[in-house]
Amino acid sequence: MPHQLAPEEVSPDGVDFLPGLALDFVVFGFHQNQLKILLLEYWNTGLFALPGGFIRRDENLNDAARRVLAERTNLSDIYLEQFYIFGDLARHDTTPLRAIMEAKGLAPTKGHWLLNRFVSVGYYALIDFTKAVPIPDLLSDTCDWYELSALPTLMLDHRDIVQKALETLRADLDRKLIGFNRWAAPLLSETFTMTDLQSLYETILGQKLRRSSFQRKILSMDILERLDKKYTGGAHKAPYLYRFILENKLH
Amino acid sequence: MPHQLAPEEVSPDGVDFLPGLALDFVVFGFHQNQLKILLLEYWNTGLFALPGGFIRRDENLNDAARRVLAERTNLSDIYLEQFYIFGDLARHDTTPLRAIMEAKGLAPTKGHWLLNRFVSVGYYALIDFTKAVPIPDLLSDTCDWYELSALPTLMLDHRDIVQKALETLRADLDRKLIGFNRWAAPLLSETFTMTDLQSLYETILGQKLRRSSFQRKILSMDILERLDKKYTGGAHKAPYLYRFILENKLH
Repeated sequence: MPHQLAPEEVSPDGVDFLPGLALDFVVFGFHQNQLKILLLEYWNTGLFALPGGFIRRDENLNDAARRVLAERTNLSDIYLEQFYIFGDLARHDTTPLRAIMEAKGLAPTKGHWLLNRFVSVGYYALIDFTKAVPIPDLLSDTCDWYELSALPTLMLDHRDIVQKALETLRADLDRKLIGFNRWAAPLLSETFTMTDLQSLYETILGQKLRRSSFQRKILSMDILERLDKKYTGGAHKAPYLYRFILENKLH
Repeated sequence: MPHQLAPEEVSPDGVDFLPGLALDFVVFGFHQNQLKILLLEYWNTGLFALPGGFIRRDENLNDAARRVLAERTNLSDIYLEQFYIFGDLARHDTTPLRAIMEAKGLAPTKGHWLLNRFVSVGYYALIDFTKAVPIPDLLSDTCDWYELSALPTLMLDHRDIVQKALETLRADLDRKLIGFNRWAAPLLSETFTMTDLQSLYETILGQKLRRSSFQRKILSMDILERLDKKYTGGAHKAPYLYRFILENKLH
């Protein structure tokens, strides 16, 4: 459902939403050694931001997260996880929001609900960016994937939010990859080689790993099932194929 | 600073606090094979609850967490971590709060700020319960440690909050134990035996572990420094002592 109404069109005085609480999304996209994130650019402002929005008064928090991400990016059926709630006073800076509203021809009146202090719940996701084509909503003129290593300047504390999401994703990565692979846009084919898996780890962790110790560590976790060797047309060193054991055996 | 004023005494109309946002604390206490949590009992109601409170408008979220925990339990200098934000509609049930207010002789008027829907940020901590003596505030008649396996009935969704905190603590436990051990009330002595450490893991995970595989896993993580053998008065099987390597070598 692209091109939903923007929040202030639905609720000019904000009464439909929980006061002072917002959502921000760090959607990581992986494909073949590349790690990207999804950003919106607000039209006529040059401001880049994480997709975000608000929670309706009659809505569960996690349902709001799925709805807002779908409305703002057209992505649905994505596995989202909360990772942090951002509540520093320093993040209360109304400058970018004023610019966005003015570019839309809206005059932000004194006391407008969007100018209040907001605490924001951060959600992250990890998908294959070739399987997810985002569509911007009416407030934004682009919604696109950006290389994590070459992000444009982000508004407010969104750079810190990305960094925190990345730290969370990197910690306890084994458990998370299993979760993410059960969803609509898995990061690896159903079967994959040890090299494919190592490449995924290296791209997310941002560092090279030793092949032998990586393989030893992964196999010791009992999360992979070894299948036949990959058919490579007769080479004598054909690699084994693996797949994730779907019943979660991790504590 | 025990016996602070209760939130509604400070701010009868709630204007000093961020609207609709609360804090709840799951303080785990460990000592010698026991795992407990800290609960308040509200006087004249028989209601048990996690310590909790609200965020001032002029206060960072994480600063509020430290302040509220100190005010409600007299515990300070504790390492707190956010673990989840609870935002289901179903948690909006004003019955227990009405009972608490009535037991204090307060009449909760229609539209009272405490009767609104609250989204709550969960924080957890893990300390040695013999090193932390809680003191209840004026709203509560006890503030005490309760065995995790034998908790009284908790109000609202506090039982779910405890369960979620426990799942979070159990996941990625290695990294967390290092963090918690750097703080004021460490869970183990500075030096400890492999048996001490295994006992800590078993108590938190709620299950027995195989000695050989536990030792192999822990040693492979490069988080321990092996010291001299523990002096046991001449026994020939004296165990080695270990301590945590404090520089974080984990990715």
